[in-house]
Amino acid sequence: MPPINREYNSHCRCLQVESRIIPPDSLRSIKLVPEGPQCPHTEVIAGLSTGEKVCLNPQSSWVKKLVKFVLEKQMQGPAKAQA
Amino acid sequence: MPPINREYNSHCRCLQVESRIIPPDSLRSIKLVPEGPQCPHTEVIAGLSTGEKVCLNPQSSWVKKLVKFVLEKQMQGPAKAQA
Repeated sequence: MPPINREYNSHCRCLQVESRIIPPDSLRSIKLVPEGPQCPHTEVIAGLSTGEKVCLNPQSSWVKKLVKFVLEKQMQGPAKAQA
Repeated sequence: MPPINREYNSHCRCLQVESRIIPPDSLRSIKLVPEGPQCPHTEVIAGLSTGEKVCLNPQSSWVKKLVKFVLEKQMQGPAKAQA
């Protein structure tokens, strides 16, 4: 379910969240929008390599793993020369 | 240091990363862009309530804490009725 565009009702961007697991390699970006005045809950919007935007459930464990994977991936790159 | 715009050289969006800690309340969004063909390292771009975009260092521990905070914040909301 793609996010509704911002002008629609300037509240939450996601009406529904996707349950299917997104394979990391088809992922272009993950946008975390913290709860705030504009929306009472945190929203996670994945940008796919197809250009599609998909709303994910911030509470599901695989989304947290995906976010962690993206941040940690940096570590497993080519071993940096030890100081 | 704001991200360079996409058309500039379609490689990495961040030339430099910000070291100052961003207070969570001034945060509107966090965008994680995994390393990929367009850029050899993961990029983290924070959108602030001022409208400013700031590049953060994905390897610094406070950025990981910030991301975790945003995802976990959902949990500390009003206790949902236990099923």
